[in-house]
Formats: sequence, C-alpha cells, structure tokens
Amino acid sequence: MSADPPLLDNPRSDRVGSIRALGRRAARDRHDRFLVEGPQGVRELLRHAGHRAEAVYLTPEAAARHTEMEELARAAGVHLQRSTEQVLAEMADTSHPQGVLAVATRMHVTAEQVLADLGPDDFVVVLANVRDPGNAGTVIRGADAFGAAAVLVSTASVDINNPKVVRSSVGSLFHLPISTGTPLSELLSICRDAGLRLLAADGAGDTALPAVDLSGPHAWVLGNEAWGLERTTLALCDEVVSVPIVRAESLNLAMAATVCLHASSAARHNG
Amino acid sequence: MSADPPLLDNPRSDRVGSIRALGRRAARDRHDRFLVEGPQGVRELLRHAGHRAEAVYLTPEAAARHTEMEELARAAGVHLQRSTEQVLAEMADTSHPQGVLAVATRMHVTAEQVLADLGPDDFVVVLANVRDPGNAGTVIRGADAFGAAAVLVSTASVDINNPKVVRSSVGSLFHLPISTGTPLSELLSICRDAGLRLLAADGAGDTALPAVDLSGPHAWVLGNEAWGLERTTLALCDEVVSVPIVRAESLNLAMAATVCLHASSAARHNG
Repeated sequence: MSADPPLLDNPRSDRVGSIRALGRRAARDRHDRFLVEGPQGVRELLRHAGHRAEAVYLTPEAAARHTEMEELARAAGVHLQRSTEQVLAEMADTSHPQGVLAVATRMHVTAEQVLADLGPDDFVVVLANVRDPGNAGTVIRGADAFGAAAVLVSTASVDINNPKVVRSSVGSLFHLPISTGTPLSELLSICRDAGLRLLAADGAGDTALPAVDLSGPHAWVLGNEAWGLERTTLALCDEVVSVPIVRAESLNLAMAATVCLHASSAARHNG
Repeated sequence: MSADPPLLDNPRSDRVGSIRALGRRAARDRHDRFLVEGPQGVRELLRHAGHRAEAVYLTPEAAARHTEMEELARAAGVHLQRSTEQVLAEMADTSHPQGVLAVATRMHVTAEQVLADLGPDDFVVVLANVRDPGNAGTVIRGADAFGAAAVLVSTASVDINNPKVVRSSVGSLFHLPISTGTPLSELLSICRDAGLRLLAADGAGDTALPAVDLSGPHAWVLGNEAWGLERTTLALCDEVVSVPIVRAESLNLAMAATVCLHASSAARHNG
C-alpha cells in the first residue's frame, strides 16, 4: 500500500459513479456492497468489522481532524483514499458525509447460524416487516446498546444496508450479528426451535411490560411503524406485550422498542 | 360560516404565501402563528386545543378520507377551507402534508404558571438547549406518553413550533403545557423553588437509573443531541443519571429520554 496515494478529484469518474450507485438497492444487491457515511460509522466498521471494509475515502480536512483513521485503516488492511470534497459529495447519499465514506461488503449470516451460538441468558430482536429506515436503524442501535445477542430481519423489511439505516444505526450495524433474507413466519419457527420465548411488542397487547418475565431467553418481535403486528404474527407469539402509557398512540416503534429492550437488559443486570 | 366554501386554487396567492412563510422562524415570531401538517396533528389540535386553531386547509380527497375533520372543525369553531393539492403543497413545509394543514396560534405560558399547578406526584421535562427538531419532538411525545405534567423549554433550544418539531411530536404538542422563553439557569431555579428534584440525564452520569428514587416530584433535565449537558448545568442538578448500557455511545437523546420518562411513569403506576 503506498503511503500517500494521489488525491481523487474527478467527481464524474466511473469509480465515483459506481460508488454512488450503492445508494440504490439494485446496485447493492448486484455488487454485494454498501456505503458507510460519516466518521462514527466508518470508525466502527474499521474497528469491529475491518475484514468487511473495502475502501475508505476521506477529504484532507477530515484526515487531519480524524487522525485515528489512518491507523485504523492500516490495522484493517484497508486502502485509505484521499478525495476532494466534491468527490465525497458525489459518492454520498447524504448531503453531509462529514468528509468520510467507506465501501463495505454485506454481512452474510443465516438466522440458524446466529441462533446456534446463543447463550442461556440471551435475547434477540426480530424486525418483522419494519419498513421505515430510521426506525430500523434506531432499533438496531437499541439492540446494541442493551446487549441483544443478534437482530433477525424478515425478508419484507427495509434493506439494512440502505444508507438511512446505516446512518441511523451509527455504527451499531457492525457490533452484533444481523441475519437477513428469511420470511417472517420461518424466522419465528427458527426462534421457537432455538428455545426462545416469542414476545410481540404491540400497542394493543394485553400483557403490560412490567408483568412479563424477561429472565429467560427470548425474542422481541417488533412490527411496523404504527407499532402493530399482523394477527397471524401475533398468533405465533407467546405473549403480546404493550408498554403502559398514559395517552394512546403516543409511542412510535423506536420508542417502544427502546423501552422493551431496556427492560430485557435491566432484568439481566439489575439483579 | 358558509357550509361549503369555494376551493382555494391559486398557489401563488398572498394568503398561500403568508402561510408558507410560517415555515420560517422570523414569520412565526412576527405573526405568533405556526403550521400543523398532516391529519393526526390537525386532529389533536382541534380536539385538545381547538381555541388555538385558526384555520384548517384540506384537499377534497382528504376531506373524504378524514370525515371527522368537518365535525371537529365545527366543534372548535374553525373555518375549514377546501384547497387544491397544489395549494397544500405550496403552503406546507413537508413534501407530504397528506392533504391536511392547519394554522395555529402559539401557546403562551410561563414556567412559573406551569409549575404553580403541579401535584405532589408530578414530574416534568426540561429541554436544556436541545437543538435537533426531531429529538425535541420525540421527547415531547415521550413526555406526553408517560404522563409528564409539562415540558419547559430553555431559550437556547429549537423553536418548538418549527414544522419538524410539530411533525415529530405527532399531536403531543397539544396535550400538555409547554413553556418557552426562559433561560436554562433560571428554569432550573424555578423548578427548584417549586420543590422539584433536578435529575440530569447524561451518558456520563455517575448514578445509574435503577438506583434513583423517582417517587417524588422531579424534573428530568435533558441536554443536547450528544446526550450531554454543560458542567455548569450538571452542577445545578441534584443527581446526574445515566441509563446503563452494554456499549458506550449507543443511545441518542430521544432513546435515553424515553427510558428515563418511562421509569418515572413506571414508578407511579407499577406500585
């Protein structure tokens, strides 16, 4: 690897165009790669999933501001390419990539593989047809913060490598295994076979969160944006759990998920 | 009020322009009015703060879909104006007002007035220089969901009548008193004088949430987006509380606030 590569300065080059294309799902599926934008996401990629980092692009200003990137990229064996602000802006999906962007390969892990490694005290998160990228990213962030062992994403959910999901997960995407590509009903069977209790989080649930025993292994099944799950999904779960609120319809999915995952974490760490 | 007003169809009229201007803070300050976009926000405005609704604009399609609007507007004594899709799009700040938009007058209530009505079991939320509109709106939504008695917003915070705050609060803005216009240090003194314990929520706090007694009257002091408060603010609080997480820096302000406010609610309702 050369110590000081030349500055990438042509925003209309083929290379820039092919990276920009990764903002679209079709290109991500074809090339099995996706964009990671901003210093925090790129840092977590290099630290926790360095083998999946393919290239890092950053402006000279960002390189001076984030001096750790050079060392992290070297440790991960990744090419670090200086680029102009215009090139970065052209590659990025967001209007503020903050001078840092990486291309990463997608994670390939099945739900069975993820659950094979589960411990007796673990809990996981199932994204059941969650379509809003901001909600999906925030739930992944919460799963990370509160120590879920994994996230299992159903086929009908948003692509977790969508730039908006990647941004709102703020690096959590690289901290825990995330399986994709399994239809929801199959995912629930796999969880059940792995000995997990299935807890559906639903605003209309008849069991209030404080009444739920969260000590054993379980899966939180989180539904769509209106914080609801289909009847057929609810029927496959062991309990339908609601977060007690004072006024109806005032939590969104990310807020409800945050409370439920925090409760699972608290059940493990507060005695 | 005429039963069937003519269709507003000129997107370049002065009236449309003056409503569109309310997307900017200067115009909101000058006219003391703001925009409420989308059916859920407008419905909550009419139901819970009808006296503050000045006019409702909706497309014929939205009127057919949301038949309750007619009755709600009549009950609130508000003029309901049919408008074309183009007129709505021109008035709105968002690209998807879903065919419904209202103009409302701002709430004027001081922190002292709000706190004069507090009960012995009440808790409130202080927004301490929160600048991100999405976070502010979500915290207001959480305050509503978990039964906070009021929200007190410091002068250096985002304008709560910013269209993005209004949208992300999804009607909660009209469910509880929200004071604005008081500098943070003064706000904390007023809370203290009202007998509230001041709990700063801070990722680096040395008291873990489960160790905090939330039974008495208290104020959650919530800081900026990086989920931090200034040292001078922390020094004015009784406790600096953190939400225990497995990995550092993985909660945002809205998530931390959701967990803290839920804990206050649970301390009141779960015995």
